[in-house]
Amino acid sequence: MIFNELLKTSGEWLKGAGPDHEIVISSRVRLARNLQGFRFITKMDADERKRCEDLIRKRILESGVVPETRYVELMDAEALDRKLLVERHLISKEHEDARHPRGVAIGSGEALSVMINEEDHIRLQVLQSGFQLRDAHRLANEIDTKLEEGLDFAFSPQLGYLTACPTNVGTGMRVSVMLHLPALVITRHIEKVFQAVSKINLAVRGLYGEGTEASGHFYQISNQVTLGKTEDEIATNVEQVIPTIVNYEKRAREDLMGKDRLRLEDRIWRAYGMLQAARIMSSDESMMMLSFVRMGVHLGLLPQLKIETVNDLFLYSQPAHLQKLSHAAMDPSERDIKRAEYIRGKLNGKK
Amino acid sequence: MIFNELLKTSGEWLKGAGPDHEIVISSRVRLARNLQGFRFITKMDADERKRCEDLIRKRILESGVVPETRYVELMDAEALDRKLLVERHLISKEHEDARHPRGVAIGSGEALSVMINEEDHIRLQVLQSGFQLRDAHRLANEIDTKLEEGLDFAFSPQLGYLTACPTNVGTGMRVSVMLHLPALVITRHIEKVFQAVSKINLAVRGLYGEGTEASGHFYQISNQVTLGKTEDEIATNVEQVIPTIVNYEKRAREDLMGKDRLRLEDRIWRAYGMLQAARIMSSDESMMMLSFVRMGVHLGLLPQLKIETVNDLFLYSQPAHLQKLSHAAMDPSERDIKRAEYIRGKLNGKK
Repeated sequence: MIFNELLKTSGEWLKGAGPDHEIVISSRVRLARNLQGFRFITKMDADERKRCEDLIRKRILESGVVPETRYVELMDAEALDRKLLVERHLISKEHEDARHPRGVAIGSGEALSVMINEEDHIRLQVLQSGFQLRDAHRLANEIDTKLEEGLDFAFSPQLGYLTACPTNVGTGMRVSVMLHLPALVITRHIEKVFQAVSKINLAVRGLYGEGTEASGHFYQISNQVTLGKTEDEIATNVEQVIPTIVNYEKRAREDLMGKDRLRLEDRIWRAYGMLQAARIMSSDESMMMLSFVRMGVHLGLLPQLKIETVNDLFLYSQPAHLQKLSHAAMDPSERDIKRAEYIRGKLNGKK
Repeated sequence: MIFNELLKTSGEWLKGAGPDHEIVISSRVRLARNLQGFRFITKMDADERKRCEDLIRKRILESGVVPETRYVELMDAEALDRKLLVERHLISKEHEDARHPRGVAIGSGEALSVMINEEDHIRLQVLQSGFQLRDAHRLANEIDTKLEEGLDFAFSPQLGYLTACPTNVGTGMRVSVMLHLPALVITRHIEKVFQAVSKINLAVRGLYGEGTEASGHFYQISNQVTLGKTEDEIATNVEQVIPTIVNYEKRAREDLMGKDRLRLEDRIWRAYGMLQAARIMSSDESMMMLSFVRMGVHLGLLPQLKIETVNDLFLYSQPAHLQKLSHAAMDPSERDIKRAEYIRGKLNGKK
């Protein structure tokens, strides 16, 4: 089964590799495309949606653009498996929740996924560990071009690519970077960063995109504007601001290590202690504790702990992963017990 | 030096021995006495206070009522040493703070201490680990009788023993029991117990008596009335109510173990985890964490940990003990660091 296979690796987004991976979790480029001759998703009936899905799925499989494609027909997938895909950032929450014919093609290593019949007919996503926007952009373009060879994308000479939501019209591109910014939160400089970012028309979101809260000090920075700029300009716009934020976070960490090292160590060791000791732990709490521990490992304060262990815990302590690992559906309070047990086991074993 | 000698043992009050020692930390009987022919302390000048102290000290040393007497002249004692005596419950905070000639005679094992020139000329205290009020009362009476053989106590046939504060007139006796009641706090039944206790004219106080807060879920139950009752009646009055409270606490612990065991384990293990992990820890926090851990050990939830270790940590993590152990005066923030280090060392070594 594809889901059990996915479960065996940490995938791409939290691999902890790539440039600036201590602070930049992942870089993502997403393109929204729609087919000429089909209405937008919300206007379609079920048959039309099915035909649309079939057409795109076939093209993906025939073209070979998605390496070692694993295709998931989401109507056939169980709720828990769909949630697993969300937690791995392979599909969106909206795609998980929808009730019409839809699917996702996942490439090997999970760096590439193509959602069919999400808000748009096609949502192509390239996700790379660390700060690799340029690579992600290049790869997204390549796949987009290959897909377009066999599909007729809705395009207006004036407006560019047409999309279901006007905010995506034009390039249909959203570029985003997931950052881990615990020191900016602790030093209370995070708000200043957000204000600066929004002034240049970038958006700040939580762990799972639009409408979600920042969990574990993870923040997603992305472009707001898709129209009137080239794809390159958009990518460059986001790409240029990231090093500044990364440097702010680095400086905040240095400040904490310099002026207030013991208080920082206290916070980090307490977080580690909680993860090792608790018998009941919510997802929110584990994200927060893991966040401090992640920074602690990168600062050399927890030399006994491997960063891979921490990155894995972020991924596997999420609700769907936890239930898949346990081969059982669990309600939230059962999960909180299982989560604590799982984390304890990993930390007390894999020191 | 007597203080270094004291520092080597945990003394009597937190020894963790005696009947019902899981819940009853210690039993205490205190008698207030004043000398005929001397004014009360507040009315005396320094010379008179000195003469009063000399007279009583001599009588104590000559009579041999205090076994292996170690006498501390508090005017000569350093501030840190005086605080050490308070933390061991051998003198009161008021006795520590006063600025006139005064002292304390301490018996071997710290079960017996006689304060001279506290609020009254003599404050005789018998302190026993666990629930041993009857023994403590018997011993206090014996010593009182022997002291009176060589000293003329101020006594009125109508009122009984005369004391500086009217609330002590009569028997001059205060009987108190220190209880460890974490489960009643967790289950929120503690207020009901206090209300019941105050209805029968008993007082509830914190760890260091009058005006202090309950720290680490330690509560001191004592008589309010000293007049119009015999010493036996007073002792019996307190003695009778304690088993009821002890049973309430036991039942609350059983309830928690039955209905909510995992939540209790979570709380206890988190407390243990904090003590093992923190780099900075206040006295209040350590008392609270140790309190949960103490209950955990008694409930068999922390089998790797010895109760002696926990009882010692309660004593030695207090400010003066910590500074004496470190041979250095420290401000509160230095102490918080030292405390965390000390507790970690003990827990990670002496599992």
